[in-house]
Amino acid sequence: MSRELVSHRDGHVYEFAPEMEPVYEAADGESLTIETIDSLNGAIQSDDDLLDAIPEEVNAATGPIAVEGASPGDVLAVEIEAVRVAEDRGRVITAPGFGLLQDDPDIEHPATRITEVDGEGDGAGGRIEFEGIDVPIDPVIGTIGVATAEESVSTLTPDDHGGNLDTTDMTAGTTAYFPVFQEGAMLAMGDSKAAMADGEMCGTGAEIGTEIDVTLSVIEDPPVPLDRPLVDTGDAVKTVASAATMEEAVELANRDVVRLLAHEHGFSRTEAYLFSSLVGGLEISQVVDPQVTARNAVPSEYLSVPF
Amino acid sequence: MSRELVSHRDGHVYEFAPEMEPVYEAADGESLTIETIDSLNGAIQSDDDLLDAIPEEVNAATGPIAVEGASPGDVLAVEIEAVRVAEDRGRVITAPGFGLLQDDPDIEHPATRITEVDGEGDGAGGRIEFEGIDVPIDPVIGTIGVATAEESVSTLTPDDHGGNLDTTDMTAGTTAYFPVFQEGAMLAMGDSKAAMADGEMCGTGAEIGTEIDVTLSVIEDPPVPLDRPLVDTGDAVKTVASAATMEEAVELANRDVVRLLAHEHGFSRTEAYLFSSLVGGLEISQVVDPQVTARNAVPSEYLSVPF
Repeated sequence: MSRELVSHRDGHVYEFAPEMEPVYEAADGESLTIETIDSLNGAIQSDDDLLDAIPEEVNAATGPIAVEGASPGDVLAVEIEAVRVAEDRGRVITAPGFGLLQDDPDIEHPATRITEVDGEGDGAGGRIEFEGIDVPIDPVIGTIGVATAEESVSTLTPDDHGGNLDTTDMTAGTTAYFPVFQEGAMLAMGDSKAAMADGEMCGTGAEIGTEIDVTLSVIEDPPVPLDRPLVDTGDAVKTVASAATMEEAVELANRDVVRLLAHEHGFSRTEAYLFSSLVGGLEISQVVDPQVTARNAVPSEYLSVPF
Repeated sequence: MSRELVSHRDGHVYEFAPEMEPVYEAADGESLTIETIDSLNGAIQSDDDLLDAIPEEVNAATGPIAVEGASPGDVLAVEIEAVRVAEDRGRVITAPGFGLLQDDPDIEHPATRITEVDGEGDGAGGRIEFEGIDVPIDPVIGTIGVATAEESVSTLTPDDHGGNLDTTDMTAGTTAYFPVFQEGAMLAMGDSKAAMADGEMCGTGAEIGTEIDVTLSVIEDPPVPLDRPLVDTGDAVKTVASAATMEEAVELANRDVVRLLAHEHGFSRTEAYLFSSLVGGLEISQVVDPQVTARNAVPSEYLSVPF
């Protein structure tokens, strides 16, 4: 099967909703290339382009893509094979009312720095430049998710359907798993960064357009129910949870790990909880979006994906 | 200079205070071995030993050790050369009213699992066993800190003086830096674990007695003031911040990184903040103590310790 290209020009969304119109219908097991525009729709091209506020339409997510056979209760597996930067610059910005240190009087809001791309943009040896410092390109898909169960959610917000997870593991080599809430799953993604710190403190990474190679598969009747996203990085299996506070997010992420460890090892919930406190552990995805996102990582030697 | 041994039998504390009586006076630059007892004072030796509540006296910290010449405003550098487990078992426990999932009705509080030590306990190839699963020994000093500026703080609580930081980076190969608030600094440490997840979700790692080799040095007139602990793991420089909520802790940790990046690169605070959002990032130390602890890590290629 030849690899089709689905571009943001074909269709994109600014919210994940229960009812979504697909721009493409993929077969179960199909491999695709997905083209994404930067989160700010190309509005920021020089250091003088400043953002007085976060726009209403931000994080355009290419799609949605319906996957044949995906039904509520199934799991959608998204194998991320490559994320290539597709333009010659990224941009890292502050905007008023946004970011971890938004109230710091000595930090300018708004501010913009363009991060020029040096070398090949395929993540293998490519670099971006920040004020004379080279930073390796390590791309991240910031927003990735599926149609929601009940409510419409802006692409600026992460939740159980995925969305604006801003999770550095969403990159080449990772398989991401999402609960399917609606027929066809309705996958959409965008908001990529050429590089991003865990936390995304100023509110952005180096925002950039990308081409993303993925293979999409439907898992029917999962032996463990999936309530929210899960990633397998090859080194670790990580639950991904979003909530109003970091305290709530880490609790959800740990609950999901306890369930997976109990399933894998035949542990009681108590044993799984005790074991979760010995290996891997909690990680921060982002602390700046309308909900924050945390992970609980377990090294692959102790936990496999049950699907 | 021969390496002296300072044991918990020589003296230990259950709080860090402004006024502390040293059990040993070290020269600036002296190398010591510090012996610590497990956080529960040896009370838990089998799976049947259960903890109905967290004891009032917990996390016995060996010391304090006065370091010659350390004065308020200085920085105390603690080079951690080795952490060896010093008994044949650790213990991981739950207790009522303690831990991230303390309200989960399907998790037993209290519960205990003994983690037997297999092989050599020096962290090189040694392992502990949890319910038939081998886990590499990767020791952590849970509680480490200095005399406080103003108030007495239980060894169960982390704050700007250090204390119960429960930070997995507090291990061999790391140099930890603490602000000096009182004459002699008054270093104390204990509460080691044979292994611990980031987050310490159930409230403990595999609690165990250890022998810790350190070298202590005083840094006078630091070019950047140090308000709270900082660690250099060799791979990364990490600020360490504790606060009532994770949101407050990560904000403090990021503010400290912005200050260090601005100093190192001549960045404005705005540039340092933007750059902090591109590399390394926020990490969770623990979410279960009376204050929570977070880190902001910057890879060593972008940040060095300014002392």
